[in-house]
Amino acid sequence: MSDTCPTLRRDGDRVVILDQTRLPWQETFVSLSGLDDAAVAIRDMQVRGAPLIGATAAFGIALAMQADARDDALTHADAVLRATRPTAVNLHWALDRMQDALRPLPAALRPAAAWAAAEAIRAGDAAANAAIGRHGLPLLAALADARRGALQLMTHCNAGWLATCGHGTALAPIYAAHAAGIDLHVFVSETRPRNQGLLTEWELARAGIPHTLIADNAAGWLLAEGRVDAVITGADRIAANGDTANKVGTYLKALAAHAHGVPFYIAAPRSTIDFGCPDGRAIPIEARSGDEVRLLHGLADDGRAARLRIAADATPACNPAFDVTPAKLLNGIICEFGVYPADSLAAVAHR
Amino acid sequence: MSDTCPTLRRDGDRVVILDQTRLPWQETFVSLSGLDDAAVAIRDMQVRGAPLIGATAAFGIALAMQADARDDALTHADAVLRATRPTAVNLHWALDRMQDALRPLPAALRPAAAWAAAEAIRAGDAAANAAIGRHGLPLLAALADARRGALQLMTHCNAGWLATCGHGTALAPIYAAHAAGIDLHVFVSETRPRNQGLLTEWELARAGIPHTLIADNAAGWLLAEGRVDAVITGADRIAANGDTANKVGTYLKALAAHAHGVPFYIAAPRSTIDFGCPDGRAIPIEARSGDEVRLLHGLADDGRAARLRIAADATPACNPAFDVTPAKLLNGIICEFGVYPADSLAAVAHR
Repeated sequence: MSDTCPTLRRDGDRVVILDQTRLPWQETFVSLSGLDDAAVAIRDMQVRGAPLIGATAAFGIALAMQADARDDALTHADAVLRATRPTAVNLHWALDRMQDALRPLPAALRPAAAWAAAEAIRAGDAAANAAIGRHGLPLLAALADARRGALQLMTHCNAGWLATCGHGTALAPIYAAHAAGIDLHVFVSETRPRNQGLLTEWELARAGIPHTLIADNAAGWLLAEGRVDAVITGADRIAANGDTANKVGTYLKALAAHAHGVPFYIAAPRSTIDFGCPDGRAIPIEARSGDEVRLLHGLADDGRAARLRIAADATPACNPAFDVTPAKLLNGIICEFGVYPADSLAAVAHR
Repeated sequence: MSDTCPTLRRDGDRVVILDQTRLPWQETFVSLSGLDDAAVAIRDMQVRGAPLIGATAAFGIALAMQADARDDALTHADAVLRATRPTAVNLHWALDRMQDALRPLPAALRPAAAWAAAEAIRAGDAAANAAIGRHGLPLLAALADARRGALQLMTHCNAGWLATCGHGTALAPIYAAHAAGIDLHVFVSETRPRNQGLLTEWELARAGIPHTLIADNAAGWLLAEGRVDAVITGADRIAANGDTANKVGTYLKALAAHAHGVPFYIAAPRSTIDFGCPDGRAIPIEARSGDEVRLLHGLADDGRAARLRIAADATPACNPAFDVTPAKLLNGIICEFGVYPADSLAAVAHR
């Protein structure tokens, strides 16, 4: 998938993305022609997943430079994209890289340089995904050796190829293990309120990997029953001390895994680690609209995509998009450079 | 509410229930005319909540006795109702009481005695609810005294008047505190897959109690942020050692509450305590249909009740209806006799 990258690609003077708000029901591609399109795609979660958010922001800069490559325009594009979503640090990382690449150049050279820098970020993410798969594979192989029957894994949200420019983060070791012939099965939590678990379900079904969909609430029971050998998720921002922000609900799974001695791994590229953030308390947690709790998307009985209201407009709702799992609950962070204890990330600070 | 009992009432030779599968969208009452109607109402969750399941089973016996009060019919009715749902022990408790009341009697006396015994179970539940409210009130009052601003509570599923024959279990102290003028606010988790949190939302809105709907996944973040002063839920079966089965997802909240020093209370009548069950491992956990994960009920854009498919029929799904919270995570069990440490239930064994 890293060759063709279905989630994001350049098409002439445009960028084409897979609209993830329509999945798993419709495979719809959307063409982004300018800065505002890119900002909307990120904010409305047509693209989501920390690595893909970063790459889309980089391509958003390229689209902006195409229209106007002057200093003010670069500053404006950076500010617009930086404000789209607060938690995933890959967004800031990618925009910092674009600034570093473009700011020193004369305006005339910026459009071509922006496309090249964005492509480099995309290619780098695909390479990081592949390396995460390679480093995670031995962990899963060792767990599989210790288990009679299929290795039982659990994940949360979607950290597969849909969330990245390659094979994914949390799913990269799972794809690698499946390709290596390891018998495995994945519990996929639906991930309310936006149900990104259904994206993972869709990915795993396409890959022929056995899996079972569960309500988020069922994770504690499955872990308590010894039905899970390891939990593996992606991340949106990892603080310097290893505290990790990921999709809301991750923390509850980590608490239950810890209570039952089940290893919990985070898989994320180096670009997700924010050494400017000392610990989890410093990570901003995005508050999204209560409509995400009150409204659901799916298929009506006639097979058409539909929206269902489960609570009235007037129902007060609170919708934090992420939570923070303390480093002490993590058994390791798998990045493109290897597997690190969550409290020993300094080793990759300058890589 | 205990006087009129909207959830369940006798109407001549029938029993009228509020159909909770239609709530909060429609207030529809269903008339049960025989044993099979009662069994379906319990199995399909037209009635739900451990205390109300028990009362409905008792009235189901009365309906059965009306048609045929011979020994074989009593044995058959008992078996049919006992098989409807495995986890809530109130079902077995109520059926045991009906057996004790009816078995010694000649068949001719059984119908009238069955109605009387069922009414006694219903009245006893209402009285227990009221006592739970009285015993829970001082706990909430003490927490309110320690907090600046509104007392912040969290509950899961529905353990209000909809789940009982009176004011509820977990919600009884909340209603009592609200009536006593304590400023409070309740976080209500939606409780996937069947969204009984929406029943709690509906109850609290009708009672004018401030509340906020959250995705189940958000509970960990709210507890970690210090936004919650206490969690209070009902129970479906409490083992002799205090381990407590309740709606799936309860355990995850208990782990998070414990991690952040937030007290977690169970509110349930004595009839929910199963002294024949030594610990949580002996509690049977009901596995319900995966369709509850794949399909959702709500309102379509045209305002009509509708069903939405969020995952295809072929999607494998696992749907445990309950989980078990170990006694060590509980700060107390509030029953009609008082508040007891979860590991000291022997005090009520013979009450």
